[in-house]
Amino acid sequence: MAVVGVMRIFVFFLTFYISLYCANSAATDIELDAKAQFTHRIDSLNLLLYTFLLILTVLTIWLFKHRRFRFLHETGLAVIYGLIVGALIRYAGSKTPVLHMSVTPEKDSKYNLSLPPDTLWLRFPNRGSNPPLPNKTYAYAFREEIVDIEDNEMDLKATFDPEIFFNIILPPIIFHAGYSLKRKYFFRNLGAILTYALIGTTISSFVVGALMYGFIHQMPNLKGSFTFLDTLYFGALISSTDPLTILAIFNDLHVDVNLYALVFGESVLNDAVAIVLSGSIQNYGERYQSGTGGFETQAFFRALGDFFGIFTLSLLIGALMGCITAILTKFTHVRDFPLLESALFVLMSYSTFLIAEASELTGVVAVLFCGICQAHYTYNNLSADSRSRTKKLFELLNFLAENFIFSYIGVSMFTFPKHHFDPGFIFAGFFCAMLGRAVNIYPLSFLLNLGRKPKIPLNFQHMLFFAGLRGAMSFALAIRNTVSDARQAMLTTTSLIVIVTVIVQGGATMQLLTWFKIPVGVEEEVEMLPYAGVRSVYSSMGTTDVEMAEPSRESGGGSRLNDKAWLARIWADFDVKYMKPFLTHARPTLLETLPVCCNPIARILTTTEQMTQDNRSRSQLDSDSDLCIEENELSYGDQRRTSVQRVRTP
Amino acid sequence: MAVVGVMRIFVFFLTFYISLYCANSAATDIELDAKAQFTHRIDSLNLLLYTFLLILTVLTIWLFKHRRFRFLHETGLAVIYGLIVGALIRYAGSKTPVLHMSVTPEKDSKYNLSLPPDTLWLRFPNRGSNPPLPNKTYAYAFREEIVDIEDNEMDLKATFDPEIFFNIILPPIIFHAGYSLKRKYFFRNLGAILTYALIGTTISSFVVGALMYGFIHQMPNLKGSFTFLDTLYFGALISSTDPLTILAIFNDLHVDVNLYALVFGESVLNDAVAIVLSGSIQNYGERYQSGTGGFETQAFFRALGDFFGIFTLSLLIGALMGCITAILTKFTHVRDFPLLESALFVLMSYSTFLIAEASELTGVVAVLFCGICQAHYTYNNLSADSRSRTKKLFELLNFLAENFIFSYIGVSMFTFPKHHFDPGFIFAGFFCAMLGRAVNIYPLSFLLNLGRKPKIPLNFQHMLFFAGLRGAMSFALAIRNTVSDARQAMLTTTSLIVIVTVIVQGGATMQLLTWFKIPVGVEEEVEMLPYAGVRSVYSSMGTTDVEMAEPSRESGGGSRLNDKAWLARIWADFDVKYMKPFLTHARPTLLETLPVCCNPIARILTTTEQMTQDNRSRSQLDSDSDLCIEENELSYGDQRRTSVQRVRTP
Repeated sequence: MAVVGVMRIFVFFLTFYISLYCANSAATDIELDAKAQFTHRIDSLNLLLYTFLLILTVLTIWLFKHRRFRFLHETGLAVIYGLIVGALIRYAGSKTPVLHMSVTPEKDSKYNLSLPPDTLWLRFPNRGSNPPLPNKTYAYAFREEIVDIEDNEMDLKATFDPEIFFNIILPPIIFHAGYSLKRKYFFRNLGAILTYALIGTTISSFVVGALMYGFIHQMPNLKGSFTFLDTLYFGALISSTDPLTILAIFNDLHVDVNLYALVFGESVLNDAVAIVLSGSIQNYGERYQSGTGGFETQAFFRALGDFFGIFTLSLLIGALMGCITAILTKFTHVRDFPLLESALFVLMSYSTFLIAEASELTGVVAVLFCGICQAHYTYNNLSADSRSRTKKLFELLNFLAENFIFSYIGVSMFTFPKHHFDPGFIFAGFFCAMLGRAVNIYPLSFLLNLGRKPKIPLNFQHMLFFAGLRGAMSFALAIRNTVSDARQAMLTTTSLIVIVTVIVQGGATMQLLTWFKIPVGVEEEVEMLPYAGVRSVYSSMGTTDVEMAEPSRESGGGSRLNDKAWLARIWADFDVKYMKPFLTHARPTLLETLPVCCNPIARILTTTEQMTQDNRSRSQLDSDSDLCIEENELSYGDQRRTSVQRVRTP
Repeated sequence: MAVVGVMRIFVFFLTFYISLYCANSAATDIELDAKAQFTHRIDSLNLLLYTFLLILTVLTIWLFKHRRFRFLHETGLAVIYGLIVGALIRYAGSKTPVLHMSVTPEKDSKYNLSLPPDTLWLRFPNRGSNPPLPNKTYAYAFREEIVDIEDNEMDLKATFDPEIFFNIILPPIIFHAGYSLKRKYFFRNLGAILTYALIGTTISSFVVGALMYGFIHQMPNLKGSFTFLDTLYFGALISSTDPLTILAIFNDLHVDVNLYALVFGESVLNDAVAIVLSGSIQNYGERYQSGTGGFETQAFFRALGDFFGIFTLSLLIGALMGCITAILTKFTHVRDFPLLESALFVLMSYSTFLIAEASELTGVVAVLFCGICQAHYTYNNLSADSRSRTKKLFELLNFLAENFIFSYIGVSMFTFPKHHFDPGFIFAGFFCAMLGRAVNIYPLSFLLNLGRKPKIPLNFQHMLFFAGLRGAMSFALAIRNTVSDARQAMLTTTSLIVIVTVIVQGGATMQLLTWFKIPVGVEEEVEMLPYAGVRSVYSSMGTTDVEMAEPSRESGGGSRLNDKAWLARIWADFDVKYMKPFLTHARPTLLETLPVCCNPIARILTTTEQMTQDNRSRSQLDSDSDLCIEENELSYGDQRRTSVQRVRTP
């Protein structure tokens, strides 16, 4: 009841600010000195709008959780509120009279490039003053190409530079995915996850790209404006999935952990694949723009090399920066000052993103693997204060960033000036997105089941298909470049696909779980019991009794470490023997694992803590349960439940 | 040793990226489609530069703390590193060839305002293609006025829009100051703090403004470009202090808590005063720009009214939003979901800032009082998880934001293109800043001592004078508007004053403490013992035994609650009887404190928790020691010391 009252206050506030907004933007006689102040007010209003939307979302979602409504996730709600507010701004607000002037290059201009200049200098006659002062020169920065001159009256209301998604919004989301990854289950299903994410996403991109191209050739109004590269770019961006809603429900209902790992792992990695793939396509396009636009076999393989090169290098930079952070926190005593330590952790993680971006690699991929390494190595070296601080910080940032981007998707549907609604393209987009997901999951599951002992049952496959919601990554890729008509049509279609999948597929999850007879309420430890000996490659290698691959009954479709997992075993062995002793305070130390000849180096790389710690603290440090950040601990939820689970965890 | 090695790696990284930076910006034949990507890389490099600077600062400051060097605070270090890197970029890097074109308005243009337009549309002939395509139109957004056409070749390297300081960097710093304020000592010295901050800062602004105007009239080269309002604006922005360095040392050395409260309280409030004052001056200037520039008495009082109006309204908005958050957290059960609760807390606090800014009030003032209210009321209602999360979050944000702004001051000294070095103005600026601080502290201390029982001794006054370091607020105000020559000279002088005071005065603090014979190592509880009965207005009112104003010996110049504190007592009474029962779960409830006729309302406003809680939990909730966020707990430091202190706290 109190909430409803408070919400009314917010609605009042909101309408007040929307009206203020419109009134503000109608102000005309501003002096140059006041221009900066005015811009600041508009910026504040833009931010305020989204802050209010997020507050509304938080309060409503609390009400839903309180009443145990599960059909709408906070991101779905953020989209819906965004749509409502976007429509209000669009139709209630007056059009903003932006003061603009048309200019043409001077005849005797020395500027003779075919590209538009970065800045324009306007020699502006000082008409207002008396006596006449000398002319003033004003600088203007390049912003965009104007395609439709008639329809460009609307100001960029409630919109932001698309680059904020890549510099501010996406890094914490992706890092948090890596940092909170349940590595235990992720590694157990690594084969399937990599197959879906790497091969599946690529197949999906090409199928969607080819089909869209075919569709467009049937539509005379679009035929000219799309190249095959354009549709392929669309295929890549629409192939990344973002099943937030479904994962939240899986978590609430304790759906089988292996299904959870498959859905989560695939969505984390296919974001990475989609962004690298779309980047390769764009590079390819730039490189061959002057050519015929044809698709040569040789050039195709070069783009493929591009793709693998960028992916691998980004992965390496991420892992390297994670390891450097681990070394810094191991060999310095910065943990005596938890605030400095947390700051170092955050700065190193963000710089990973920036290094990759600045090196023309992909920051998202780098930050993802950085997050995994930070959780696997650095987390061990941190003080208790920094552990909880970094966990809680990234959890909160992730929550805010996710809901911001989904509100933005809703609002921008109405306020972003570069939308291009084309019913044919939208229909084709929906159809192809669905088909693309199907050709990812079903054929690959069939192939995987040929070699997999515990097969992926058909109901899991259906669930994986329906978990193909589109989200933040697709939208961010689509809005990044809206110069051409084709790109604008893609943005509109992508926004619509995101909105519809998040609301419809997200809302139908409970129903689907029932239809597909997916077992719910599977308590983790019940499922885990048969795995007791093989709980994880890491923990079993950590303790010396290697009783892996113990044949055991399985409750629901999980995979098992069979003899095929040799690669994982080699890595785990290397990790426990060399990486962990080097990067953390774990035992055995390098003095024990390296050959005798390397003793001097090993001594330098072994800390006193490592030498002197007793077995008790060692087991505590070494245990994967401590390393692995528990999903439930990280996600918000009923506190009681969390504490019960914590008690259950050995 | 390891740190030195790691630092070498960073220096390598840094030089690598500086070179990459220059190489990048020299690229010429970029296609329009790739322009967005290129901009993104430059943005990433800019951010990366500061991220590296902060990492370097963190590592070096750890080394200093580890070796117990106290003469350099992290902000001083950030400035020094910033200066070095700024110089490297300026002199090592090649000048960036920005593609620019000069244009003039068309003769038959319909645009006839005296202001430059917001956007330019360039009709660009499509020379490159064959056969010729139709002309394209590109939009250009207004950026700045170009004063010196010759010297504008340099790109805006490593610089950001000044608005980020007001929207991103300052809010967390100021909020954290309010949230972590030791309200106990703050309220005990409220009279002196308000006198210094409100009256002192105003006096200082006018003295500096008048003196600077006098100086400038002696300098023929500057005479024409400065109005009295310009120098007054400079007076206001240079009157805000930022004694971070000194407070950190006070905290480390356990300097007398009352001196700490005076320095901290004054610096928090004079930031607020300076920003409102400078805003009023600017408004006054805009309102009377068309006039003679003279300073009428009537108009002066109108500006004074402006000042008090904006200050009071901002304060009220801040307090109101704090109270709304308290109500939301009290009457909803959002604390069952700590992540939602923390998100709500952060969003409400940020929206306070934005509401104030959008309403043409001052966000910094609003967010400061919002922080105080959040700590005083909302903090009580939060779950344990949210308490620690919000504390740690704002502590980290404050640390990063502070060090970012000080690095930026260093870097921008060399890279910001709008600097105007004028030795006369700089010298006058230094002299006036010093004098302004003196006319704030000494005369007002004399007046205060007339009415104060425990007088502020002369050595405390000297320390207050030397604690007048200039910092983030002065810089942010100076860089906000650099359109005119006068403003550019102010920016340069302000940057130099900030750099010199932070490094020199900050570095000399230890020496000064010895010279002025300020007692150090005063343990809080030793000092507090005589206060046992009057520990704080709040706690003593909360417990029913009101034994206030007990005469007691004082260890060092602190003020005491004497009969003058009637205002504080009335407020404390009101707070305990009505505000706390309404906004928190504290006892006595409104049912007990409101008259009987208001019972129905009181019942609605009293939660079940309030009614049913036993005395044990009540005292825990009510205690001010729980409410008051301990300074030592918030600041990083030797963990052992903190835990010892926690044990000591009753």
